[in-house]
Amino acid sequence: MALDSRRRSGGRSARRAARSAYDFTMLPGLTNTLPLCEIMDGAQVEWIDAASMDILENVGVVFRDDIALADWRKAGARVEGETVFLDRGLVRELIATIPSDFTYQARNPANNVRLGGRHAMFVPMTGAPFLRDLDDVRRNPTLDDLAMFHKLSHMMPALHSSAHHIVEPYDHPISQRHLRITYSSMKYSDKTFMGMTTSPKNAEDVLDMCAILFGEEFMEEHPVTTGNCNGNSPLVWDETMLGAMRAFCRRNQPVLCSPFVLGGANTPASVAASVAQLNAEALSALAYTQVIRRGAPAIYGHYLSTVSMKSGAPMAGTPEISLMNFMIGQMARHYGVPWRTSNTLGGAKTFDAQAGYESATTLSAVMHAGANYIWHSAGWNEAGMHCSVAKFIVDAEQCAMAYRMAEGVNWADFEEALAAVPDVGPGGHYLGHPHTQENFQTAFFMPEMFDNNSIEQWIAEGSVEITERALTHARNLLNAYEEPLLDPARDEALRDYIARREREIPAADALNQDF
Amino acid sequence: MALDSRRRSGGRSARRAARSAYDFTMLPGLTNTLPLCEIMDGAQVEWIDAASMDILENVGVVFRDDIALADWRKAGARVEGETVFLDRGLVRELIATIPSDFTYQARNPANNVRLGGRHAMFVPMTGAPFLRDLDDVRRNPTLDDLAMFHKLSHMMPALHSSAHHIVEPYDHPISQRHLRITYSSMKYSDKTFMGMTTSPKNAEDVLDMCAILFGEEFMEEHPVTTGNCNGNSPLVWDETMLGAMRAFCRRNQPVLCSPFVLGGANTPASVAASVAQLNAEALSALAYTQVIRRGAPAIYGHYLSTVSMKSGAPMAGTPEISLMNFMIGQMARHYGVPWRTSNTLGGAKTFDAQAGYESATTLSAVMHAGANYIWHSAGWNEAGMHCSVAKFIVDAEQCAMAYRMAEGVNWADFEEALAAVPDVGPGGHYLGHPHTQENFQTAFFMPEMFDNNSIEQWIAEGSVEITERALTHARNLLNAYEEPLLDPARDEALRDYIARREREIPAADALNQDF
Repeated sequence: MALDSRRRSGGRSARRAARSAYDFTMLPGLTNTLPLCEIMDGAQVEWIDAASMDILENVGVVFRDDIALADWRKAGARVEGETVFLDRGLVRELIATIPSDFTYQARNPANNVRLGGRHAMFVPMTGAPFLRDLDDVRRNPTLDDLAMFHKLSHMMPALHSSAHHIVEPYDHPISQRHLRITYSSMKYSDKTFMGMTTSPKNAEDVLDMCAILFGEEFMEEHPVTTGNCNGNSPLVWDETMLGAMRAFCRRNQPVLCSPFVLGGANTPASVAASVAQLNAEALSALAYTQVIRRGAPAIYGHYLSTVSMKSGAPMAGTPEISLMNFMIGQMARHYGVPWRTSNTLGGAKTFDAQAGYESATTLSAVMHAGANYIWHSAGWNEAGMHCSVAKFIVDAEQCAMAYRMAEGVNWADFEEALAAVPDVGPGGHYLGHPHTQENFQTAFFMPEMFDNNSIEQWIAEGSVEITERALTHARNLLNAYEEPLLDPARDEALRDYIARREREIPAADALNQDF
Repeated sequence: MALDSRRRSGGRSARRAARSAYDFTMLPGLTNTLPLCEIMDGAQVEWIDAASMDILENVGVVFRDDIALADWRKAGARVEGETVFLDRGLVRELIATIPSDFTYQARNPANNVRLGGRHAMFVPMTGAPFLRDLDDVRRNPTLDDLAMFHKLSHMMPALHSSAHHIVEPYDHPISQRHLRITYSSMKYSDKTFMGMTTSPKNAEDVLDMCAILFGEEFMEEHPVTTGNCNGNSPLVWDETMLGAMRAFCRRNQPVLCSPFVLGGANTPASVAASVAQLNAEALSALAYTQVIRRGAPAIYGHYLSTVSMKSGAPMAGTPEISLMNFMIGQMARHYGVPWRTSNTLGGAKTFDAQAGYESATTLSAVMHAGANYIWHSAGWNEAGMHCSVAKFIVDAEQCAMAYRMAEGVNWADFEEALAAVPDVGPGGHYLGHPHTQENFQTAFFMPEMFDNNSIEQWIAEGSVEITERALTHARNLLNAYEEPLLDPARDEALRDYIARREREIPAADALNQDF
């Protein structure tokens, strides 16, 4: 094809989203320009708000944690046993000090991303107890596997984070794992990363390591990591999560306040009422972040699924999840707080068409919903039980495609492009036109992972389906991987810290998975 | 699971979209309640409009058809050779008489659907020269295969049409195929169907058969079929399409005026300029429908792809296609004309994850774009070269899910559902609550084609991926199929018509595929 020889030539209006398979430069944090899918009118937003506030005032929220209960008493809430009753005035006053947006720092400042309002980022999946590896074999992951995913996160342009325990490294004691996970995130990528919240102590270790990497003073002013705190829906926050939350908030690091919704099982069998409950739960935790430290950044979170009547398992890609995402986005914007969602969720056991439908449906919904912290954006399969290398690669490319969509239309060269129409005229063709040759590559996204050849060509090339193509691409990426330089003094300090803590921490503890 | 025994019980607020695998009742024509994704502001809409009008006035459109050229001269257009230059005033005056919506009649009036404005319908794919059959074998289709797809169209609740040549029946002479295809559409389903436009003569045959089925007078007042007329982008309409268009318009039957866009190959390398050209093309044909017959219904159409730089093949599921769909929707609404889009397009060779991503991405985009006539909604794969039975089933279920999403949130039982929150309280569970038991089935869509079991259960059941699950479902559906009664007198008249025409038509002619 005539254009083939020009593939790398770029064009005057070249935009960063147009890149070859081996351009690893991170796309800047996304600015989502789409008109958002706001399915509620003002009255409906108020209705959800009022219902949530009624729940907080009259049903209350259980904080299974003595420190939190004492904090709430001091803050003026009514506390009965473990149940905290939150007055709407108090809630509104507290959440008012949450920053509406902030810049999330990476150790390479070029990879900083802004979060909140129209600013969004893609973060890979985390927490998988299994992986499907480079040979598509399902097995327990190791620290090497985790490093591999951190390297891939580093190299996929649309991923803005290396997250944390993308997979659970089973070859290291649970109680010390958070140290190795954090180091791996920091070492193999210079993008943003997440901090473990598997216990308050673990959170403190992560934050100490962040202080080594960024400096304690820098952290006082700048978010450098994020911690996820899951709620136990309905209406319970536990000691582990609250302790981790305090560790993060005290050091001014944002937590994701994430009710864990299995629609119909731990929420009412109603989309609107599920959102009202989830919203009450999120607000209760968001308010608590401000009890811990006024002005600390925090993120309105959730994990959202509906439940299969057949198996009780979480389902993804269902219409109610899209609707709830649209609604939650509106509520978060109503409160002026950045919000987190989950992206490419799904329950397929392999990387089959089910996985594709589920992931693409969710990705589309969260883009139209205007989510800010778009977590679980690559690799998720089998209801989070495994991270698939193949799916990781394809999902990450899908994020790049969604990014391009959310950038909107490039009007800059409209007149220039229109000038080609009379040049070419009725019945002509554009491929040879100079404007086409200059702009083809940047005008239209060309997915590397989709095969669009004829079936004859496809058969001649070995009838390769997408799983195998993606795994080949992953191997090529890993061969081309270059570790981003980490300041040797900080690297050594991190290693020293880990060595010391591993001497101190007994090698047995409970595994907490986060979602 | 507690709810299992209640699966068929329904609930007070049962909505029609919630149905078991063997409830074949068609969902009513969709009313899309989503706020639409309108990415252009008013000035940008005017900009596209002005650019298109400039093209029509100054570049012109080639009508390769003497009758059309004569018609245009009579209508006051400037004609030079085959090129028609259309003044914007004339275009606006002509398209003003296209109905903004209409009711598309089925032979079973319960299956009528409204089209235009917020009213939409899902129509299966058509035109595949191959199928992947009930054993997932790729081969040439027969009339029996076509009948099978018409039966499946009849049984999938979210499909509102049996279309026409879903697959090309190779076991019948090309020149007579349109008769058998039309009969098959009419016979095996009592939903709406499409009419062949492979030649003006073929179109007349289809319309004569429609007259037998519905009555000539009824057709004068009511759309009973739709014909697709593809443009040859850039800016050419050919004799075949224009002749078929005349046949449909004269009898007051709507045509889809569908420029055939391979973005970058037959349009400029620019999203906005591609839409401007496509819009000019669509307007020229829409205007011509009103030259043929003022007030005849017509549909703003398009076939939209971007082109692979590797193979020149059309690509689907790319971000520019989503953007163009959003824009075209705005333009069609600007002109007050119903519009057609293509749904589950894709280039995968098998029903792999690529097919899932492509289809779901497109489905989502066309829902947010607010398309009315959502064609190619089931079965499309391999760039339209084959229709996959497995994908047909899954796509049709995906349409039901999109339908549910587009219905929006059910607020009717919000207060009632909220009342469960204090009943259950913090840390409780909802599955045993009466509101849940009454409403679970209708509150959350449960995709039959997605497997959400644990991997252990999935392995125990034979590690069945989605392709095999869908094919099993297709076999079960076909076993349960019941032919909708066709009035014996009309049936006989149709058969007589076909027999007569098959005696008259020589058994050799060119194959025209439409998209």
